[in-house]
Amino acid sequence: MPTKKSDFPEIAAVDLGSNSFRLQLARVADGHLIFHDSLREAVRLGAGLDAKNNLSIDAQQRAIDCLKRFGERLRGLPPQAVRAVATNTFRVARNAPNLMAEAQAALGFPIEIIAGREEARMIFVGVSHSLPPVTHKRLVIDIGGGSTEFIIGQDLEPIEMESLYMGCVSYSLRYFPEGKLNADAFEQARIAAAAEIQSIRKHFVAEGWEEAVGSSGTAKALGEIIRLSGLSEGEITREGLEFLRQHLIKVKDIKKIELPGLSADRAAVLPGGLAIMTAAFDALKIERMTAASSALREGVLYELLGRLHDRDIREVTVSSFMRRYHVEPDQAERVRDMALRLLSQCTGLLQQWDEDTAAQYLTWAARLHEIGVSIAHAAYHKHSAYIVENADMPGFSNMEQETLGLLVRAHRRSLAKLDTSLSLVGNQDRLLLVLILRLAVLFHRNRQPDNRPDLVLSITKTGYQLEIDSDWLKENPLTEAELLNEVAYWKEVGLSLSLGS
Amino acid sequence: MPTKKSDFPEIAAVDLGSNSFRLQLARVADGHLIFHDSLREAVRLGAGLDAKNNLSIDAQQRAIDCLKRFGERLRGLPPQAVRAVATNTFRVARNAPNLMAEAQAALGFPIEIIAGREEARMIFVGVSHSLPPVTHKRLVIDIGGGSTEFIIGQDLEPIEMESLYMGCVSYSLRYFPEGKLNADAFEQARIAAAAEIQSIRKHFVAEGWEEAVGSSGTAKALGEIIRLSGLSEGEITREGLEFLRQHLIKVKDIKKIELPGLSADRAAVLPGGLAIMTAAFDALKIERMTAASSALREGVLYELLGRLHDRDIREVTVSSFMRRYHVEPDQAERVRDMALRLLSQCTGLLQQWDEDTAAQYLTWAARLHEIGVSIAHAAYHKHSAYIVENADMPGFSNMEQETLGLLVRAHRRSLAKLDTSLSLVGNQDRLLLVLILRLAVLFHRNRQPDNRPDLVLSITKTGYQLEIDSDWLKENPLTEAELLNEVAYWKEVGLSLSLGS
Repeated sequence: MPTKKSDFPEIAAVDLGSNSFRLQLARVADGHLIFHDSLREAVRLGAGLDAKNNLSIDAQQRAIDCLKRFGERLRGLPPQAVRAVATNTFRVARNAPNLMAEAQAALGFPIEIIAGREEARMIFVGVSHSLPPVTHKRLVIDIGGGSTEFIIGQDLEPIEMESLYMGCVSYSLRYFPEGKLNADAFEQARIAAAAEIQSIRKHFVAEGWEEAVGSSGTAKALGEIIRLSGLSEGEITREGLEFLRQHLIKVKDIKKIELPGLSADRAAVLPGGLAIMTAAFDALKIERMTAASSALREGVLYELLGRLHDRDIREVTVSSFMRRYHVEPDQAERVRDMALRLLSQCTGLLQQWDEDTAAQYLTWAARLHEIGVSIAHAAYHKHSAYIVENADMPGFSNMEQETLGLLVRAHRRSLAKLDTSLSLVGNQDRLLLVLILRLAVLFHRNRQPDNRPDLVLSITKTGYQLEIDSDWLKENPLTEAELLNEVAYWKEVGLSLSLGS
Repeated sequence: MPTKKSDFPEIAAVDLGSNSFRLQLARVADGHLIFHDSLREAVRLGAGLDAKNNLSIDAQQRAIDCLKRFGERLRGLPPQAVRAVATNTFRVARNAPNLMAEAQAALGFPIEIIAGREEARMIFVGVSHSLPPVTHKRLVIDIGGGSTEFIIGQDLEPIEMESLYMGCVSYSLRYFPEGKLNADAFEQARIAAAAEIQSIRKHFVAEGWEEAVGSSGTAKALGEIIRLSGLSEGEITREGLEFLRQHLIKVKDIKKIELPGLSADRAAVLPGGLAIMTAAFDALKIERMTAASSALREGVLYELLGRLHDRDIREVTVSSFMRRYHVEPDQAERVRDMALRLLSQCTGLLQQWDEDTAAQYLTWAARLHEIGVSIAHAAYHKHSAYIVENADMPGFSNMEQETLGLLVRAHRRSLAKLDTSLSLVGNQDRLLLVLILRLAVLFHRNRQPDNRPDLVLSITKTGYQLEIDSDWLKENPLTEAELLNEVAYWKEVGLSLSLGS
C-alpha cells in the first residue's frame, strides 16, 4: 500500500554529524511541519578519527550510546516516518561499515550515508524553508564538524552546491594541537581553508547572491558571540570575526575560552570554525551574514514530507539523467512494465523490502540501465553502474546509489564477478530484482513494441522457475537461445533457474 | 622536428588479426598511397585461446615467428613510418601483456591493441578508399577471426560502428568441433550470431544503406566460391550462401572441403564465417554484397598518411569530447600553455618519447582533465580517467587511452595509489609528464588569466627541482601552501621535489 500523509502524524530526522548528533521531530499538519521536539548530543565523532581515518573504539562507543538514547525516543514510529543520515565522518572512516551495523541496531532504524553535495542540497532545503520567501539569491554556508557545504539557491531551489573537506572539528584538532591558540596557527588554518575554497570561488562569484546565511552551530555561536560583544545585532561581520580572533589569541588556550553564550562543547571547536568562516568571508567577499537555526535535519524532514506527498526529488533526478544521457524512453518503459509485472507475481518472496521499495528500484534501474552507452557501447552496463555509483544524484543516499548500481551492473552478461564482489548471494531481495531486470531486458532486446509472451516467475525448493508458452518460444529461437544462456549464467553462480511451460 | 610527408617514402601497417597476420607496405607519392608490397601468414592466433582465454605457448610461438619475419622486411624504416595494430585476440587474451613485450621485440616496432569500434572505424576508412566515391551510404561487414565489425558510412565518413564478439575462428571451433559439418551445427551457429546482431539491428536498419560490402578474407572467399559455382559474377548472394551450406553439410568434414579458389587455411574457418554471414544477411535483410579487398591494414595506412599531413583524427576526437563534456576551453588552454612551456625546459630528460609525442599527451591531458566533472565534482579526476579509459575515442589506441587516463587521474591529489597500481615509478617519461601537468593545474587553480611567475623545472641528482620567484610566492600564499602540499605528495611516493628561487 502506498503511504499517505495522514498515516504519520509524527516524523523524525536523525543527523549523525561529525560534531554533534541531532534528532528532530515534527508533526505533520495539513501538509506542513510543526517542529515539536529535538535532542542534541556533542558526540564529536570526527575527533575520533586517527591519521589513517580509523574511528577509535571510544568514539564508536559514544556514537552507539547516543543512538540508543535517540532510539528510545523513536520507538514505535513506523519505518517510513524516520530518516537518519550520516555525513562526513561516516563518509571517510574506513571502519564505518562495521560501526553502521551496530549503529542501526542501536537506533532501531536504517541509517544512510549521504554524499557531500546531497548534504549541501538538503541543507539548503532546510534553511530556505526556515527563512522568509524572497526573490533574490541566497548563499548558504554550513560549517560542519568534518565538511563545509556551500550552496547558492533561489526560493527553495538550490543552484550551486559544493561540499569541501574541512570542518570545525578536524581543523581545530589539526591547526590548534593541544588547544594552543596563536596568530600563526590561525594563519595556517585560514590559508588551508582558503586553498579549499579557491576551487569553487570563481563559479560561486559568477553565479552571485544578495544575502549570505550561515547555518550550523558554528554560525549560530559566532553570531551570538558577536552580538553579545555589542558589535552587531546578531549578524556575523568581518569586524566581529577579527575581534574574536584577537580575543582568542590573547586567551592562548582553548580550555580557557570563556565567552557569554558559548558552551564548552562549542568552545572546543570554535578556533577551527572561526578560521574557516574568516577564509570564506575573504574569498567570497562577504561583509555580513545572518545565522539561521535550521539546517540538514530540517531539510531531511521536508524531503520526507515530500516523499509522503508524491513529490519525490529522486524521480526528478532519474528523469533528468534520462535526458542528460540520451536514454530511449520507450525502451525504458517497456522494460519497466515487464519488470513490474514480474515483480507483482513475486511479492510474497520479498524479505527485506516492501513491494513499493522493490518497484521503485526496478523503475529506476529500468530507466537508467542504458545510460552508460553515452561512454561506450562495449561493456555499457559497467559504465551505467559507474555513473550511478559516482554521480551526484539529488535525493539518493549512497546506499541507494550502490543498490541501483548493482542492479544496473548485473542487468546483462556474467554474474560471476558480482557474486563475490558485491555479495549478491545472501541478499534474496536484490537477487530477485536482478533476475527480474535481466529477464525484462532479455525479452526486449529487439527494442520493438511487439507483444511479449505471458511469463510466470516463481520460486521452488530448488530455485527460480520461469514458465513460458512453448509455442511462442519455438517461434522465437533467438530469445530461446538467450534464455538458455541465462540459465547457464545463473548456474555459474550456483543458482538454479529452470524453464517450464 | 615535426615529421614531413617527404621524410617517409615508404610506410607500413601491420595487422595482428585473430586469423591472419598481415603486413602491408605502401609508397607515398604526392600525398597518395601506392600499395607495393604485402605479406600474409595464417597464424590463427585466435585458435590458441583456451576456455579461460589464455593463449597457448604454441600459438604465441607462431605469432613471434611470424613477427620476426615481418620485422626483417621492416628493418630500417623510421618509427613514425610504421603502425602495428592488434585486434580481438589481443583484446581478450589474459596473457596478452606478456606476449606483447616479446612480440614488439620480434617486430622491432611498438604494437597497439585497438578497441573494436576503433577497428571498425579504420576498416571503413580502408574500404571506402578502395571503392569508387559514391554519394549513397554503404554498409561494411568485416568478419574477422575473433570479432566482426559492422559499419555504415557515407563517402569517407563512418556513421555507425559496432564490433561484435564473434569471428570465423572462434565460431568454427565452437560450433563445428572436430571439424564435423551438419545442419544442426550450422543452425546453432547461425542463431548465436543472430542473437549478437540483434543488439545492433534496429539502429542499423534505421540508419539504412544502399550498398553492402564485405571486407576481410571470409567475404573474399565466399564471393570467389559463389562466382566459381556460376551463381554470381563475384557477389555474395543468399542463394550462393545456401548452396554453400548444403554443399558443406554433404562434405561432412572440414578437412575434406575442396572448393575451387579456396585455400586450406581458409577452409578451416569457412563454416563459422558462413554461419555469421548468413545470420547477417537474414537480420539485416541483405540480398547481395560485393567483396572488397581492402580493410583494416589499408585503413591504418590512410590514417598514418593523415597524421603525417596534420589531419590527425585524434585532434578531432579531443575537440568533440571537450564539447560533449562541457570543458571550459580557456582554462584548458591556460593549463596546456604552461605545461608545454615546462616541457620545453625538460626535453633533454625524455627517454622513451620524443618531444612531439610528449607535447601531444600533455595537450590532450590538459584539454580532457576536467571532463569527469560531468559525472560529479567530488573526485572528478577519477571520473575523467574512467571516461578516457573506457570511451570510444576515434584514432586512439588502447595504450594511448591508458597513458592519457593515467595522466588525467594523476593530475591532483595523492600519488600513492597510482604508484602501485599503475607502476608510475620506473617510467621516467610518464612521471615527468605527471609532474608537469600537476604544476600547470596547480598554478591555474583560480581559473583566471592572471600572469603566472616564471618557473624553471629541472632534474638534479636528488630529484626534481622547481625554481620560482620568491617575491611572487610571498604575495601568493595559497599557491605557496599548495606547492608545499605538492612536495609532500611526491615525498609520499619516495620522490623528491624541491623548491628554490
